[in-house]
Amino acid sequence: MSNQSPIPVVVNGACGKMGREVIKAVAQAEDMTLIGAIERNPQYIGQDIGEVIGCGPLEIPVLNDLQANLVLATQEKVQGVMVDFTHPDSVYENVRSALAYGVRPVVGTTGLSPEQIQDLADFAEKASTGCLLIPNFSIGMVLLQQAAVQASKYFDHVEIIELHHNQKADAPSGTAIQTAQLLAELGKTFNPAIVKETEKLTGARGSVAEENIRIHSIRLPGLLAHQEVIFGAPGQIYTLRHDTSDRSCYMPGVLLAIRKVTQLKSLVYGLEKIL
Amino acid sequence: MSNQSPIPVVVNGACGKMGREVIKAVAQAEDMTLIGAIERNPQYIGQDIGEVIGCGPLEIPVLNDLQANLVLATQEKVQGVMVDFTHPDSVYENVRSALAYGVRPVVGTTGLSPEQIQDLADFAEKASTGCLLIPNFSIGMVLLQQAAVQASKYFDHVEIIELHHNQKADAPSGTAIQTAQLLAELGKTFNPAIVKETEKLTGARGSVAEENIRIHSIRLPGLLAHQEVIFGAPGQIYTLRHDTSDRSCYMPGVLLAIRKVTQLKSLVYGLEKIL
Amino acid sequence: MSNQSPIPVVVNGACGKMGREVIKAVAQAEDMTLIGAIERNPQYIGQDIGEVIGCGPLEIPVLNDLQANLVLATQEKVQGVMVDFTHPDSVYENVRSALAYGVRPVVGTTGLSPEQIQDLADFAEKASTGCLLIPNFSIGMVLLQQAAVQASKYFDHVEIIELHHNQKADAPSGTAIQTAQLLAELGKTFNPAIVKETEKLTGARGSVAEENIRIHSIRLPGLLAHQEVIFGAPGQIYTLRHDTSDRSCYMPGVLLAIRKVTQLKSLVYGLEKIL
Amino acid sequence: MSNQSPIPVVVNGACGKMGREVIKAVAQAEDMTLIGAIERNPQYIGQDIGEVIGCGPLEIPVLNDLQANLVLATQEKVQGVMVDFTHPDSVYENVRSALAYGVRPVVGTTGLSPEQIQDLADFAEKASTGCLLIPNFSIGMVLLQQAAVQASKYFDHVEIIELHHNQKADAPSGTAIQTAQLLAELGKTFNPAIVKETEKLTGARGSVAEENIRIHSIRLPGLLAHQEVIFGAPGQIYTLRHDTSDRSCYMPGVLLAIRKVTQLKSLVYGLEKIL
Repeated sequence: MSNQSPIPVVVNGACGKMGREVIKAVAQAEDMTLIGAIERNPQYIGQDIGEVIGCGPLEIPVLNDLQANLVLATQEKVQGVMVDFTHPDSVYENVRSALAYGVRPVVGTTGLSPEQIQDLADFAEKASTGCLLIPNFSIGMVLLQQAAVQASKYFDHVEIIELHHNQKADAPSGTAIQTAQLLAELGKTFNPAIVKETEKLTGARGSVAEENIRIHSIRLPGLLAHQEVIFGAPGQIYTLRHDTSDRSCYMPGVLLAIRKVTQLKSLVYGLEKIL
Repeated sequence: MSNQSPIPVVVNGACGKMGREVIKAVAQAEDMTLIGAIERNPQYIGQDIGEVIGCGPLEIPVLNDLQANLVLATQEKVQGVMVDFTHPDSVYENVRSALAYGVRPVVGTTGLSPEQIQDLADFAEKASTGCLLIPNFSIGMVLLQQAAVQASKYFDHVEIIELHHNQKADAPSGTAIQTAQLLAELGKTFNPAIVKETEKLTGARGSVAEENIRIHSIRLPGLLAHQEVIFGAPGQIYTLRHDTSDRSCYMPGVLLAIRKVTQLKSLVYGLEKIL
Repeated sequence: MSNQSPIPVVVNGACGKMGREVIKAVAQAEDMTLIGAIERNPQYIGQDIGEVIGCGPLEIPVLNDLQANLVLATQEKVQGVMVDFTHPDSVYENVRSALAYGVRPVVGTTGLSPEQIQDLADFAEKASTGCLLIPNFSIGMVLLQQAAVQASKYFDHVEIIELHHNQKADAPSGTAIQTAQLLAELGKTFNPAIVKETEKLTGARGSVAEENIRIHSIRLPGLLAHQEVIFGAPGQIYTLRHDTSDRSCYMPGVLLAIRKVTQLKSLVYGLEKIL
Repeated sequence: MSNQSPIPVVVNGACGKMGREVIKAVAQAEDMTLIGAIERNPQYIGQDIGEVIGCGPLEIPVLNDLQANLVLATQEKVQGVMVDFTHPDSVYENVRSALAYGVRPVVGTTGLSPEQIQDLADFAEKASTGCLLIPNFSIGMVLLQQAAVQASKYFDHVEIIELHHNQKADAPSGTAIQTAQLLAELGKTFNPAIVKETEKLTGARGSVAEENIRIHSIRLPGLLAHQEVIFGAPGQIYTLRHDTSDRSCYMPGVLLAIRKVTQLKSLVYGLEKIL
C-alpha cells in the first residue's frame, strides 16, 4: 500500500463508545489518515480527540461541524470516507451531506427507515458514489450466519441459543432474530415434530421464530454477547458459536468497509456483501 | 475384597433396557454373583439371560417368579440384593416381598407415591433391613447437582439449559426441574432483575421454575441427554455440564448402591446420600 | 421422485459396521431398491441380510459373489450403484469390476494408493461412468471444514481441539490433520506470536500442524468423536464444533452419493465436491 | 448490618489495576468505609483517589505513607483492614507493619517465600490478629476446584483445558497447574491407558502434570481467562468450566475476605478456607 495515498477518514460520533474505537483503529491503520472528529456532545468540543480517548495527542480537535470536515475531506489527494456512528435522528442528513460532497459514507448507525434507505440508494446511484450501510460490523458473526445458511440446506433441525448480560432488556436479540430470518429464506420449515411435545413449565421450549426455528435467550451478569446455532441430525450435532468480548471485534469490519467503499459506485447494505 | 463372599444379586426387570445393563455390570463385578433374572415379558422366559442380552451364556435362566428367586437369595452365605427396574404398578409389591425375605432392594423404578415410600420406610425400619430408592443412578449428575447447590450460595444468578433428543415429549426434563428444586431449597430468590425485560417473541426467556430459576429445553436429533447449569456474576461465568452418551453411565451408581445397601438398616432415598 | 425408477443398489461389505447401516438406510429410501448384499465373512452367507442386521426379512440373501450381483444390477431399468465398505486389499478390484459392468461405485473403503486412484479415474473417464471416492461421509464435518476454510480468510489465529474416546490410539485424529491441511492451503501462516511462549510442562501448547496450526487431542471414556475449530481475533471468538454420536450420521452422505453418482461421468473424490 | 460500625479499609497499591477495582468495591460496600489509598507511583500522589479511578470524588487523597494510614485505621471505632495489591518486594514489610498496628491484612500480592509466610503466620499468631493471604480471589474458580476435587473421587479419567489470550507467555497457567495438584492430592493416578497411544504430531496429547493429569493450553486473541476440567467415564462426561471476563469478578472474594479477616485470630492461606 506504500504507493497509494492514505484514505482520509472523518469520524462522526467520535466520542461515543463505537466512535472512540474507530478513532483508535483508523489512527493505527497505515493506509488511512484521520482528518476529522465530529461530536455533538459539547463537553468534548475543542479538545484533541486523542486526549479524549486516552491514546495520546492526535492533533485533531473535536468539532461539531460536519460541513467543515467534509470540505477538508474533499481537499485530499484521494476521495475521503465518513464513518458515522451517531443517532437515528441525524444519520440520514449526515449521509446526504457526505454524498453531496462526494465523501463516501460508512454507516454503523441504525434506525434508517426503508424509505430513507431507498432514497439514499437513489442519491448514491446518481452521484456514482459508494455508500455502505452496515448494521453489524462483526466479521465473525457474518461468517457464522453464512455458515448457518449453508448448513441449513442439509440439516432439517436447528435451534438458536443467544446469551447476553442481564442489562439487555429485550429478548431474543436482534441478531438472533436476523439469523433465524436468514435460515428461513430457504423456504423450508424446520424441526418437524416426531412426538407431541408438552411444556410442563410454560416457555421451556423457547420462542418460535420464522419457519419454526426456536430461539432461547439467556441473561446473566458475566456474559457479554454470545450466539450459538445448533444443528441436529441422527447421530450428529453441528454447532456454530460466536463470542464477543470487546468492541474491538468490530474494527476489522470497519476498516474493511472503509477500504471497500472507495471502490463502490452505489449503496450496498450489509457486511456480507463485501466479504 | 478377596476374603469376602460375593454379594448375591437378583435382577428384576432383567430384559428391559436398564435391566440388561445391570446384568452385564453385575456379571463382571468381582464382588458380586448374579443368582437370578426375573422378567414378566413371556418372550424371554426360560432362555439363558446371557444369551438374551448377547454376552454369552451366564447359566441363569430368565424366570417370572420373584418369590423363588428371593428364596434363592436367602440361601447364600451373605444376604442378597434385589435390583428392581420394573414398572410403577409392580414396584411396591416387589419391594415389600424382598424386605419380607430380608433381601435388600436397590430400586431404580420410579412412580412410587409419597405414601408408598413412607410405608416402605416404616417396613424397612422395623425389619432393620437396608433399602435404597434411587431415581437417578448417574454419579456425574449427582455430583453436578451437589456442586450447583454449593455454587448457589455464592452466586445470585443462574439459568439451566437441558438438551435432549427430539423423541423426548415433555419439557423441561425431570432432572432439570429437580436441579432447580435443589437450588431453591436454599430459600433465596435468584436472578433479581436490573432492567424490565420484554419478550419480542413469547417464550424466548424460557420457563420459570421455583425461586425464579430459568430452564431452557433444547430438542434435536443427534442429542442424547445433557444438562448445563450456568451461574453468572459480574466478570465471571461458572458452568457445570453433564453429558450422557450411554446407559452404561448408570452402572457405577448401581454397583455402588448394591455394595452400600448391605450396610444399611433402613430406607434411604437418593444416590447423593451414599456418595 | 415417483416418476422415476428406483436406483438399484448393491452393498459390498454388507455385514460390517458401516455396511449394516447402509443396508438399513437404502432399504428405507423410497428412491432406491436394495438388490444385493455381498460379504466375505462365511458366517452370514445364505442368510437374509435383513435378519442379519435385525430389521426383519428383506428377501435378499447374503452372497459372496460380486460378479453375480453386478450382473443383476445391469438388468434393472436404470443403471445400478455399488456401495463399497470392504477392505483396503480388495477395494481396487471391486471398483474395477463395477466400472467394467457399468455399475457406479460409491466407495467408503480407505487405503487406495494415489496410483490406484489415478488408475481408477482414467478407467472411469474412458467408460464415461461416475465413480465416487468418499473418505468421510459426514455432511456435518464437511460443512464444518468448508466454514473453517471460509473463516480462515478473515482470522489469522486458529487452534483445533479434537476429542475422542480413550480407545483411540493415535493423535491427532486424521480428520483434525485434514482440517488443518485445508486451512493451510490458503498459503498463510497462522498464529503469529506477540510474546515469546514458554512451556512449563512440555506439550502444554499441543502439536503444530501445517502453517503453525495447533492441534490438541483429548482422550476420555464417555467421549465419542468430536472436533472443535476455534478462531480468535481481538474482541471475538468464532467456534465451529461437530459431535458424532452414532454411525447413522454418515447415512445422509451415503444416500446423497448414491443419487449423485448416477449423474456423473467420471471419478470424483470427496463429499465436498457433491454438496 | 445497620447496627454495626462499618469496617475501616486502607487500600495499598490503590492505583494499580486491582487496586482501582478494590477502591470502587469498598466505596460501594455499605458495611465498609474507605479511609486510605496508598500508592508509590508519584504521578497520583495528592489527587483524590475517586478522581483517579474515574468514579467521582471520594475525598480520600492518594498518599505514599503507609504508617500514617495505619495510624488512621487504629483511630476508628472498630479495627481496620489493609488490602494489599502491591509488589513482591514490599508486601512482606507491608504486612509486618499492618500487624504491628493491629490492622488486619488481606493480601492479594503474590511472591512471598514459604519462609516469609511462616514468619508472618508466627507474628499474626502472637498478636492474635487475623491475616489473609489469598493468591486467587475468584470465588467461581475456588468453587470449580472444590467441585473438581469432589468429582475426582468418583472419576478416574480427567483432562484440563485452559484457554487464555495470546499475550500470556507461559503455559500451562498457574491456576491449571494448581487445579491438577489439588486433584493429585487424593493420591490416585488418573487416566489408566487401555491402548498404547502414539503421537503422530508431537505434543498432540498435551502436557502431563502430577498423577498423569493432562493439561492443554490454548492461546488466542479474543480469549480472556478460561478453565475447563473434563471428567470422563463410560457413557458420561462431566465438565466444569470457569470464564473470567473482567477483574470485577474478584471483588466478591475481596469483600468476603475483608469481612472474614476481622473475625480471625491468625494467618489463613487461600480463599477456600473462608468459603
